[in-house]
Amino acid sequence: MVQEQSRRHNAGTLLRHVHVDGPLSRAELGERMGLNRSTIMALTTELSRVGLVREESPVDTGRAGRPSLMVRPASDRCYVLAFDVAVDRLVAARVGLGGTILDRREAVRPRAGPDLHDVVMVLARFGRQLHRAAPSGARCVGVGASYCGMIRPGDGMVRYGPDLGWVDQAFGDELGRRLGLGLPVAVGNEAHLGAQAEQRRGAGVGLDNLIYLHGDVGVGGGIIVGGRLLGGDGGYGCELGHMVVNPYDGRPCGCGSHGCLEAEVGERALLDAAGRPAELFGRDAVRSVADDADRGDPAAREALRRVGDWLGIGVANLINLFNPGVVVFGGMLCDLYPGAAAQVRGRIARNVLPVARESVRLRTAALGDDATLVGAAELGFARLLDDPLAVWPDPAPPDAGVPSSAPPAPRLPA
Amino acid sequence: MVQEQSRRHNAGTLLRHVHVDGPLSRAELGERMGLNRSTIMALTTELSRVGLVREESPVDTGRAGRPSLMVRPASDRCYVLAFDVAVDRLVAARVGLGGTILDRREAVRPRAGPDLHDVVMVLARFGRQLHRAAPSGARCVGVGASYCGMIRPGDGMVRYGPDLGWVDQAFGDELGRRLGLGLPVAVGNEAHLGAQAEQRRGAGVGLDNLIYLHGDVGVGGGIIVGGRLLGGDGGYGCELGHMVVNPYDGRPCGCGSHGCLEAEVGERALLDAAGRPAELFGRDAVRSVADDADRGDPAAREALRRVGDWLGIGVANLINLFNPGVVVFGGMLCDLYPGAAAQVRGRIARNVLPVARESVRLRTAALGDDATLVGAAELGFARLLDDPLAVWPDPAPPDAGVPSSAPPAPRLPA
Repeated sequence: MVQEQSRRHNAGTLLRHVHVDGPLSRAELGERMGLNRSTIMALTTELSRVGLVREESPVDTGRAGRPSLMVRPASDRCYVLAFDVAVDRLVAARVGLGGTILDRREAVRPRAGPDLHDVVMVLARFGRQLHRAAPSGARCVGVGASYCGMIRPGDGMVRYGPDLGWVDQAFGDELGRRLGLGLPVAVGNEAHLGAQAEQRRGAGVGLDNLIYLHGDVGVGGGIIVGGRLLGGDGGYGCELGHMVVNPYDGRPCGCGSHGCLEAEVGERALLDAAGRPAELFGRDAVRSVADDADRGDPAAREALRRVGDWLGIGVANLINLFNPGVVVFGGMLCDLYPGAAAQVRGRIARNVLPVARESVRLRTAALGDDATLVGAAELGFARLLDDPLAVWPDPAPPDAGVPSSAPPAPRLPA
Repeated sequence: MVQEQSRRHNAGTLLRHVHVDGPLSRAELGERMGLNRSTIMALTTELSRVGLVREESPVDTGRAGRPSLMVRPASDRCYVLAFDVAVDRLVAARVGLGGTILDRREAVRPRAGPDLHDVVMVLARFGRQLHRAAPSGARCVGVGASYCGMIRPGDGMVRYGPDLGWVDQAFGDELGRRLGLGLPVAVGNEAHLGAQAEQRRGAGVGLDNLIYLHGDVGVGGGIIVGGRLLGGDGGYGCELGHMVVNPYDGRPCGCGSHGCLEAEVGERALLDAAGRPAELFGRDAVRSVADDADRGDPAAREALRRVGDWLGIGVANLINLFNPGVVVFGGMLCDLYPGAAAQVRGRIARNVLPVARESVRLRTAALGDDATLVGAAELGFARLLDDPLAVWPDPAPPDAGVPSSAPPAPRLPA
């Protein structure tokens, strides 16, 4: 019994290694996992038999001796559906084991208006299209979704979606029902998922302490402390966008307060500072300010400078609190940051204690606008990676055409 | 081998339970640890034989059946020395297993001046006195120290002590050498230790997410995230005192910046706001402002209100970031907080998102000014609790008079 548990645990660990880091030799896996050759071989043989990995001879290294077989994730056979409800778009993707985006659908989302039903109908249609378009031997093992709002951990309930005006909407349940795949939908906050994606596959690979700021209408945060997402008592931590940075004449914030970081550096703050008319909004408008600043336009440069100063105060506070290895700017902050970097760095130089300042790096999201989608896919893979041999049906003749419309009906861990 | 490791691990876990929670019955220990009666009995018999616990019949419960033996820590036989270098005092204590302060020495510390040598001489003298005064059967198993500055994790080096002006001083090594007990001295930052002490034995018992603010000249922080102290990449996180709360006309801060939380709510800020002369300083001066405010003095009330508003902004930001179960005010903030609570709560009501606001409690340190000293003692006990049967000499006839001047020479874990 203990042996069987240990075998299944090791299978999950091995699969996680190739899922996150791509093809690895049996020898590398043995070294990473502290297991001997025969144990690794038994694991890879089992995972290969059920069709989750493939073992291949490596390209000739020119070195003597029989080279160790390379183990790679079978991304064409095993995939998840990932969804992203962002402020300006709805995205769905089929993401293969190993994290490759294999297929995707995208729609522009009207800024105001869509209710739960509208959003779910669009996403579910995309999801079914992606599922049908998958090769016949491929199986869907999970569904993950990123949402631009506050999510109750565990059940995918949107507690508060400031931008869509949603309060206590059962988004995960409803999307799962409409997809009709018999799979639960795991939902996460977009900035939390962006942080985890950047740590696993982006600007924070190998780092245990990371701060991810996701800008759009507001500013969300995902903070990794000691390798784990900071949750707090109810899972509602990381709300760095509501850090008060301007207590005197701060701009009004959607939360009802004034001078919050997101009120001072969000989309509207930048566009107002640049003198853009109130009817302009969205990512293109933000990019046009950044482009104008690049071309030397004084108003655009001053706007980035002003917003960058507030951003710098917020980031300096976060570095003093968290002593992170990297701060990652995602969402529209990817566009804003380059023109505001001098200001941000100036604030860090003035306000951060030397010991924490010396080691921190500042980066835009390496995964760009896909950070949140990639994070949603990782959420979808979580069950498989926890216990692949329980989730993945066995026996599965690796090359038989398993009907993709009949996936197993798994349960989410409590 | 595995069995022996498991036995030693279980011995540590059992000892930790009675150390932290006091006397527990064998039955309770079995339930907590998920071990059967005979395994628990073997462990308590072994720990009792070497003299780390005592087993006693409980008081009559009036219930039928033979009552389960109570296991209590042998605080008279096993102790640590704990030291506290605070801004205004030097404290040394002998603390028994179970966390009881058995004996203590204290000296007023001049605010300016004492160098490493001065401080170590006083503390080492106190430590030797306490050690000599211990009963002859008692053994010292560790030494912990709290310091009001930035400590390099691992070796007790004071990286930066703003208040004493120390930079890169080998405080832990030097104190260990002068004590001459052959024991290493584990050193921690006072606010980190205060946070851990309040979580283990104070206002945060049973909570996994806690923020501790320690006020004196400045404001230090200890933040527990998911049950563990937030360290960050280098162990220099938690610097909440340097969160900029007043970016416009902020008071100058010792760090070289302006408007940091500690510049706005530290001792000098309060005394200046209350119109006290510049030559007044220290804890008594702070208490006199709090007392005057209690008596209705308008200037003192206004001073607490003003300082409380900055404190409230800082605390609200922290609650949004960490979604903690409790925020604990320690050091001179114990005196300041009651008169500033309305202001702090007002800021929280305005600035914290409802989900995080509903569940958080605000408390003054339950351990009072001993929070840091108690935390230092816990640091001293860490090695014993990790592996009691390795650290504690065996065989030790429980009632033989072991010379207390010949403790074992243990090593700190790497």
